[in-house]
Amino acid sequence: MYSQVSRGVEAAVIGGDVRLSADGRTVDIPAIWLRDNAPDADSRDVLSGQRLFDIVDLPADIRVEEASVAEDRLRVRFTPGGHQTSFALDTLLGEVNQVANLDLRTERAKRLWSDAARAAALEPVEWESYLRHPAPALRQVVEWGFVLLQGVPAEAGQVTKVAETFGYVRETNYGRIFDVRVEPNPVNLAFTGLAITPHTDNPYREPVPTLQLLLCLHNAADGGDSGMVDGFAAAAELRETDRAAFDLLTSTPVTYRYRGDGTRLGAVVPLIGLDAEQRIREIRFNNRSMQVPLTDPARVRAFYTAYRSFAELLYKPRAQLNFRLETGDCLIFDNTRALHARTAFAASGGRHLQGTYADLDGLNSTLRRLEEQGR
Amino acid sequence: MYSQVSRGVEAAVIGGDVRLSADGRTVDIPAIWLRDNAPDADSRDVLSGQRLFDIVDLPADIRVEEASVAEDRLRVRFTPGGHQTSFALDTLLGEVNQVANLDLRTERAKRLWSDAARAAALEPVEWESYLRHPAPALRQVVEWGFVLLQGVPAEAGQVTKVAETFGYVRETNYGRIFDVRVEPNPVNLAFTGLAITPHTDNPYREPVPTLQLLLCLHNAADGGDSGMVDGFAAAAELRETDRAAFDLLTSTPVTYRYRGDGTRLGAVVPLIGLDAEQRIREIRFNNRSMQVPLTDPARVRAFYTAYRSFAELLYKPRAQLNFRLETGDCLIFDNTRALHARTAFAASGGRHLQGTYADLDGLNSTLRRLEEQGR
Repeated sequence: MYSQVSRGVEAAVIGGDVRLSADGRTVDIPAIWLRDNAPDADSRDVLSGQRLFDIVDLPADIRVEEASVAEDRLRVRFTPGGHQTSFALDTLLGEVNQVANLDLRTERAKRLWSDAARAAALEPVEWESYLRHPAPALRQVVEWGFVLLQGVPAEAGQVTKVAETFGYVRETNYGRIFDVRVEPNPVNLAFTGLAITPHTDNPYREPVPTLQLLLCLHNAADGGDSGMVDGFAAAAELRETDRAAFDLLTSTPVTYRYRGDGTRLGAVVPLIGLDAEQRIREIRFNNRSMQVPLTDPARVRAFYTAYRSFAELLYKPRAQLNFRLETGDCLIFDNTRALHARTAFAASGGRHLQGTYADLDGLNSTLRRLEEQGR
Repeated sequence: MYSQVSRGVEAAVIGGDVRLSADGRTVDIPAIWLRDNAPDADSRDVLSGQRLFDIVDLPADIRVEEASVAEDRLRVRFTPGGHQTSFALDTLLGEVNQVANLDLRTERAKRLWSDAARAAALEPVEWESYLRHPAPALRQVVEWGFVLLQGVPAEAGQVTKVAETFGYVRETNYGRIFDVRVEPNPVNLAFTGLAITPHTDNPYREPVPTLQLLLCLHNAADGGDSGMVDGFAAAAELRETDRAAFDLLTSTPVTYRYRGDGTRLGAVVPLIGLDAEQRIREIRFNNRSMQVPLTDPARVRAFYTAYRSFAELLYKPRAQLNFRLETGDCLIFDNTRALHARTAFAASGGRHLQGTYADLDGLNSTLRRLEEQGR
């Protein structure tokens, strides 16, 4: 019925709602939904597709009076009011499970990898090839949490141009671009040669930057190798193996704070954020800036035990994809899911990345448009 | 004990944790919390304040071996390992309920107004006065959801300069600045002369822009008056009067979509977003772009009933603050809470606003810094 909507679909009015049936399968659609989603020019703006009326403009007791199918369209007349409209059947039936199609943010849309060998099998994408055909790389960010571009011009400022191929830079107190290299007076440990364990960036910011890009301008340092971990996979594993710990981490807000150069950022959020239907949606994990609230001692102790369990899953050597950013490599990753890390490096050798933040809404929009054009 | 920490605080080790007591009141602090939050130079970077170790670096069985109070500091020694550290008592006790202090995003930090007369009593702030002393206006945005600045230079591009007094512009497909006036081929009903009922902006974007600024360049139109509604107050009222409806709206994701000029935005979110402890945190409400998922018919019907109830609370005339933006007026409002509206206006009269999006993290950070300096 969903794929061949033109064949033998019949409509009936049952209790004021519409029942569509074909091949013994049925879909019941309430009258209020049909009226609210009427696509005609009195109901929706022709140019923008935006709805022209409001829920309170519709009668609470609205019913379908008449329904019929002809020429791949469902035609209905409502009462009271007598409004008539019609729906293309394929569009209408496409609304069933539309949530799953539109949701690119929760675990539902992801391929989880708790074994880094799975992610290691993904090939880097050449910059020129990306520019000609960006959709596969963007889809990899959605499904796997990251993509590695190679051969990107290793020029100062280029990293924002990469972001602008699919979206918009998110400017922060770190600037439109931040330099990741050894600084004389570092406001953040990122700007030292210290090892950094897997983490998400800017957890003390709300809204958190949902994407990060890191472009390697040069890397001749001893050390300074990169790592990446799938935070969604670790959270799903914790849910599987220790449900009580998972529930504690999703229901307990922690505080994240950052203080420096005129900035006083702070956020109160759980380590594992869920959507309205309890799906994994956002990981914030950063040992440098997280603080467990000082509340009931028993809860504090239980929280630390759960936090340790989650950290152990994230830090499992097998969970971490290891690689080295070379000149012209640009890593694009989902900062709500993928944790990144680096090994220590010597200041003398010279390692210089430029980074920028951006957001998933722009990337997802561009991907939808490209995939729509490709169909 | 919290205000006069220097007087008579005593420390005892009980079951490996620390008990602080004074005047018969006690605070128990688990050893793991103390070790994790040790402020000494081996534990925290002196410049950035960031933590230098990881949860998995700490022994799971850590205990306090010795604790004492002297000179307003708590000194502790841990075992195993023998690490010693000390805490300023006022800082340490300030961590109790720190979550409430740091949270500026949920209903906990807000003054709700379901009666517009309350909000109408707030005075507009003169631009020159704002520039000299911005904290009160920014605090009004945090607590009341909006502030109206007057006497802002009514120049094209100025609205982003207002945003940059406290934070950063969020660029979107609408640009860094968008013009709100009658357009010949409007991609959004905002760019027509139609009336727009109370709504939040860009609900189809994730992360949603958490702040919006609208600067009036001129307004000589018949109509085009502005309105504002407190979405948190309406949600709290719904929770009070119809808990089942509230629960349905917080637990049911809807889809928001926007399609235009190469853009395919989509978000799957509830109308009322809660934090990890079920506090009201984010309202998304927009009749133009919201679509109720076509799922189980009984749930769809129940959802529409709840949605209508929420809309009726939002659209109550008494809930809506009405005013008119004049040349040089700049409205700054929390787009996660305050709904805005406008009456219809004639294209001929000339009404031209410029808008920009920004984010609450920057505003909140600036406010914290200013209030810290002011203390």
